Amino acid sequence: MKTKLLILLSFISFTFLVQAEEISKGVVQLDELRKPTYREIINIPDVNGYKVLKCDFHTHTMFSDGQVWPTIRAQEAWEEGLDAIALTEHVEYHPYKNSVEVNHNRSHEIIEELSKKNNIILVKGAEITRQTPPGHFNAIFIGDASSYIEDNSSEKDWEAVMKAAEQNAFIFWNHPGWRPNIAGSYEWLPFLEDLHKKNALHGIEVINGFWMYMKALDWCIDKGLTVIGTSDIHNLVEHDYDKSKKYVHRTMTLVMAKERTPEAIREALNAGRTVAWASKYLAGKEENVKNLFNACVKLLPSHFSQENRNGTKTNFYEIQNNSDLYFELELTSGKGTKKITLYPMSSQLISAEAGEQSLSYDVTNAYVRSDKYLNVSFGL
Amino acid sequence: MKTKLLILLSFISFTFLVQAEEISKGVVQLDELRKPTYREIINIPDVNGYKVLKCDFHTHTMFSDGQVWPTIRAQEAWEEGLDAIALTEHVEYHPYKNSVEVNHNRSHEIIEELSKKNNIILVKGAEITRQTPPGHFNAIFIGDASSYIEDNSSEKDWEAVMKAAEQNAFIFWNHPGWRPNIAGSYEWLPFLEDLHKKNALHGIEVINGFWMYMKALDWCIDKGLTVIGTSDIHNLVEHDYDKSKKYVHRTMTLVMAKERTPEAIREALNAGRTVAWASKYLAGKEENVKNLFNACVKLLPSHFSQENRNGTKTNFYEIQNNSDLYFELELTSGKGTKKITLYPMSSQLISAEAGEQSLSYDVTNAYVRSDKYLNVSFGL
Amino acid sequence: MKTKLLILLSFISFTFLVQAEEISKGVVQLDELRKPTYREIINIPDVNGYKVLKCDFHTHTMFSDGQVWPTIRAQEAWEEGLDAIALTEHVEYHPYKNSVEVNHNRSHEIIEELSKKNNIILVKGAEITRQTPPGHFNAIFIGDASSYIEDNSSEKDWEAVMKAAEQNAFIFWNHPGWRPNIAGSYEWLPFLEDLHKKNALHGIEVINGFWMYMKALDWCIDKGLTVIGTSDIHNLVEHDYDKSKKYVHRTMTLVMAKERTPEAIREALNAGRTVAWASKYLAGKEENVKNLFNACVKLLPSHFSQENRNGTKTNFYEIQNNSDLYFELELTSGKGTKKITLYPMSSQLISAEAGEQSLSYDVTNAYVRSDKYLNVSFGL
Amino acid sequence: MKTKLLILLSFISFTFLVQAEEISKGVVQLDELRKPTYREIINIPDVNGYKVLKCDFHTHTMFSDGQVWPTIRAQEAWEEGLDAIALTEHVEYHPYKNSVEVNHNRSHEIIEELSKKNNIILVKGAEITRQTPPGHFNAIFIGDASSYIEDNSSEKDWEAVMKAAEQNAFIFWNHPGWRPNIAGSYEWLPFLEDLHKKNALHGIEVINGFWMYMKALDWCIDKGLTVIGTSDIHNLVEHDYDKSKKYVHRTMTLVMAKERTPEAIREALNAGRTVAWASKYLAGKEENVKNLFNACVKLLPSHFSQENRNGTKTNFYEIQNNSDLYFELELTSGKGTKKITLYPMSSQLISAEAGEQSLSYDVTNAYVRSDKYLNVSFGL
Repeated sequence: MKTKLLILLSFISFTFLVQAEEISKGVVQLDELRKPTYREIINIPDVNGYKVLKCDFHTHTMFSDGQVWPTIRAQEAWEEGLDAIALTEHVEYHPYKNSVEVNHNRSHEIIEELSKKNNIILVKGAEITRQTPPGHFNAIFIGDASSYIEDNSSEKDWEAVMKAAEQNAFIFWNHPGWRPNIAGSYEWLPFLEDLHKKNALHGIEVINGFWMYMKALDWCIDKGLTVIGTSDIHNLVEHDYDKSKKYVHRTMTLVMAKERTPEAIREALNAGRTVAWASKYLAGKEENVKNLFNACVKLLPSHFSQENRNGTKTNFYEIQNNSDLYFELELTSGKGTKKITLYPMSSQLISAEAGEQSLSYDVTNAYVRSDKYLNVSFGL
Repeated sequence: MKTKLLILLSFISFTFLVQAEEISKGVVQLDELRKPTYREIINIPDVNGYKVLKCDFHTHTMFSDGQVWPTIRAQEAWEEGLDAIALTEHVEYHPYKNSVEVNHNRSHEIIEELSKKNNIILVKGAEITRQTPPGHFNAIFIGDASSYIEDNSSEKDWEAVMKAAEQNAFIFWNHPGWRPNIAGSYEWLPFLEDLHKKNALHGIEVINGFWMYMKALDWCIDKGLTVIGTSDIHNLVEHDYDKSKKYVHRTMTLVMAKERTPEAIREALNAGRTVAWASKYLAGKEENVKNLFNACVKLLPSHFSQENRNGTKTNFYEIQNNSDLYFELELTSGKGTKKITLYPMSSQLISAEAGEQSLSYDVTNAYVRSDKYLNVSFGL
Repeated sequence: MKTKLLILLSFISFTFLVQAEEISKGVVQLDELRKPTYREIINIPDVNGYKVLKCDFHTHTMFSDGQVWPTIRAQEAWEEGLDAIALTEHVEYHPYKNSVEVNHNRSHEIIEELSKKNNIILVKGAEITRQTPPGHFNAIFIGDASSYIEDNSSEKDWEAVMKAAEQNAFIFWNHPGWRPNIAGSYEWLPFLEDLHKKNALHGIEVINGFWMYMKALDWCIDKGLTVIGTSDIHNLVEHDYDKSKKYVHRTMTLVMAKERTPEAIREALNAGRTVAWASKYLAGKEENVKNLFNACVKLLPSHFSQENRNGTKTNFYEIQNNSDLYFELELTSGKGTKKITLYPMSSQLISAEAGEQSLSYDVTNAYVRSDKYLNVSFGL
Repeated sequence: MKTKLLILLSFISFTFLVQAEEISKGVVQLDELRKPTYREIINIPDVNGYKVLKCDFHTHTMFSDGQVWPTIRAQEAWEEGLDAIALTEHVEYHPYKNSVEVNHNRSHEIIEELSKKNNIILVKGAEITRQTPPGHFNAIFIGDASSYIEDNSSEKDWEAVMKAAEQNAFIFWNHPGWRPNIAGSYEWLPFLEDLHKKNALHGIEVINGFWMYMKALDWCIDKGLTVIGTSDIHNLVEHDYDKSKKYVHRTMTLVMAKERTPEAIREALNAGRTVAWASKYLAGKEENVKNLFNACVKLLPSHFSQENRNGTKTNFYEIQNNSDLYFELELTSGKGTKKITLYPMSSQLISAEAGEQSLSYDVTNAYVRSDKYLNVSFGL
């Protein structure tokens, strides 16, 4: 009977462990109401031997104009399954300066130890916040930022970016086109060309939060810059993103890296092995987006063949999405299912006319240029 | 045909309004990924003509040891449908003081205007954080806190609380019993008795976050103190509370007030018309808990009578919970349904033997003393 | 100590009551995995003294071409908070007849007792399934259907409908326009005009499941027919409807009735006091839709006034949706907030320029004609 | 500009494709309200080269006492990501026989083609429903069931089971102990021993729906029978199971098979390579449960070492659950984190004292005997 009681007790929800000692004092824990805490795994298979790291290199805390203490950013990153983040406070903009210390290194320092403990790669960064145009630049993999330039007058623009370039930072142009009414704000200006030539510009945000900049995708491809996606989060990720939809995550950069280290991330960024990811949308260089798609989506061999009344046959297939990404496909050649929606970690049935050799699809949520979807083929 | 196209466009999700102008620049909004924002209504009917206001008088920001800028607390309160909150920073404890100004009035000031705009009643407060025992006290409806005492040595305890009492604050003892291993930490000490006699102690936290202090309920009843429930939130409400359960809300005080004003809240607190609410659990004085229950739960007239094989009849009833509260009932007298679980905004079927005059139930999630559930009767 | 242990036990989740006797036999209940069962309340306030009953008068079971035993329809109706349903099996169409009895009364009979016990009003009905055109008709409040006509040849159309008319049924035309490629399928044919004249046609489905028939709304208004919305459910409601969205319910008719009885429903149908409701969309006669809106949505008095830099003032208001309906508003006159989305049981903040007397809005999810939204005004 | 408009249109939710032709007729689709349909992937890694197939060999439709047409069972299996199901109608019990044909082969036949198309392995089965004791038996991989015995008198028990045995069926004893008040109902009776000796009993349901039969687990281990878990679903899976909890799935058998074929399933059942799975709970032979655990859970190399004040070091590790299973661990040896809860597809941080060689844990939701948890060790 005692053994059985032990069984009983073992079944009491772990959230409900009321210590006898405390009970005897009239204190009751209500842990059943607590949200369980864990690190979610965002499921994306390796791509040709590369790990797909989930990275957000543009975030804010109250050390610039964000609304949270830096620890909240570390907590969000851990719970959401990110591999790497950077806190990129505005160097030039400190709306809370009456209450909060202005120190370009501080928010990073506050969560350095916590990030190590949590197994999050914390990349040091800053947002160099020039007037538009040319606008804002993020510098990551930076050194000491104490001498970064707070004066945001135009004549200091070049010097401000060079501070980061001298530290061998990885520098990307933020949200081009975010102020559409300002002339020159969404153009490839000489200033940018000059930075590029001096190896002081390495990428562009093609997606920033809930905005996608299509011209930036073309510039990245044409000029050999790295495609970046970031959240630019100021409020809470939970507040801004509709997580009731299974496919919604904060906007980020998928980095195809040799291993899960800061050095490997930097190598992959330099090599341009990235895809910008905004929940339903992907943008990147064709090779990268195609490799990512192929790692995630598999067409299984036909499992069934149906004879039709007109003498033809239809073959049925299961198409599997073994990832937490989302894909929409539209047929471009071959006789088969016209539209396919692949939700995270799920499969669909599709069919093709017997005798077809392959089906081709546009992946209409995956951009490889401003005017071009990824196109994929499945051999039958 | 043009009219019809207008119909089409009107049906496009409002979240997807891409301005033509921006599109022409190659900028695309992804607003379908945004979380919709609105103020949720916590549905609780009026109780005998009183409005039931949802109040949380114990919260922290980074002006003491919380992890958010004050605006996040205002935002949470608005979205969660609270009527009133207080930011109650520790007077004596400032772990971020190297980076953040120490100013006992500041966090309140920062969201004063925002709260007015958002129609949230912002009550000024502070946490007087003495060593345990006697422990911590919240003072709300306070004045200027700049002269509050930061020295937390025991000899200053009395003076520290008196600073608030002199401002005619409403003062309650926080989480008694939170340090069960410290002698005297969960006892009605002479210090408390003295405060009470001097009209400098008006309530006790019977529920603080995920902890329920049963002795405190008895003290409130026996000594005429007001029953308080608070979140004592430091992190994010979303992070700590399991909102995937429909009945989970932050812990708070339900205040039965004549109207939705600061003055009416104060009057109700003084009069003790409160119930502490922790999602599934309620605690309060019997009269208050009973009135609240009766306002929420209705037994409808019998809609069906079934003849049983043994010649008896069974009558069926619908019992409605017209609130976002949650109730569990266990039969204590009468022949009828033995257990009833009333989820938020829902009803259940129950039955009673024909001829019964009434059924009585213990509401086993509603405490009116440490050892006593609310008991309710339904006339049949 | 024993008392305390009782407290402990009382806190163990009610779902986990493992009887000691069973445990001693090595049987363990896993009730924590069960879905809790209850009747959800769809929250819609009374409209000018009328109760708003939630009614679905078009459903199928396997006694025609549905996929469930009739008890599942009763269960769904109970859990979803419906007040009244009808099982409307096809009289002429029985794809499962090799395995299932053909009997036009049977599915209704099977759940008659269960519906009474569950406090669901079960209205007897049938779908008279003529070829298109004229298509299908639902008859509800019918008598014995055993002599209804299974022969679906055109020459029997009139007689088939008259069977129901002779029983004083309430008859409505189903999903006009459901076969857009058939000539005459979405027109007001002489056959319909004749039925109408003979008082054998009383309503039209303006919304059927996921289809809205805009012409039908105009016909209802112009000819004095009752606006009907139905699910026409064949599969499971859970399977077809995306309940992950808080505002999604099965398509139904909101009937404004004097009381919750079959007779009052019939009276309201005869009087045309209905609104068709498809989760986000409403359609009905202007008076009905306006009364419903006004019962649900309230503008509270201004709670805040803000001085602008240019000397003007802006007043802030809270607009409350005290219902489980959903509304989208677009400003048509006055200077104020341009777009408002009212989610179920929530409120929003809006603003108006000081001095404005009122704001008018189109409710763009509520149709009062095929080309006209409900327009509402709020006095300031 | 036209190109840009195309971009706009491409972003309109795919659920909202209103055909212009239909619009021109005044018909509007509301497909945004539809639940998206797809086949969920239950994520469980291969175990030592075996595929882990998700199988439910005990389900009912209205051809016995279930509440759905057989197609609903096929639909549920497809959407829930099951690999194999059996419809196991009671041979002796037909409560709907007045309306529904009694035919022991029919429900299987109805979904045979559909299952092939959907890539679901449909195993033919029946429930041989003898009085208790000995109770019910499921036979799967059966042949023509038309001559199965409907007479449920005790003297026919042996013959009834032998009908299936003669067809080389796989036979398992259902829910032993389901009627605890009947003498002999939860005992290893001579009847069972005789079946076992005649090779006419091959497994036992250790978990049936929401009931776990601990004695049955011991019998399986001691007598070399296969451990089975089933849903025994009569109503809808969606209705019975609380899918709001991420770890809840219908109760089923995890079959470790060489490939995804009926033959491989049969081979695995014969070989006893199964684990019974009820959302949070696992039960099986130690080898099987251990192999399954090891395939799912990985301890990563330590990523961080922390120096403690007392001179010791603590190492931090990430422990990953790469599956949709759920595990609770309690430390049994070594100095490290005491309790670990591994939610589906997530990881946790744990720590160990530097110098420890390994940590051992009881997996307290995984039974390998009625009185024994799975115990696992992690090398550090």
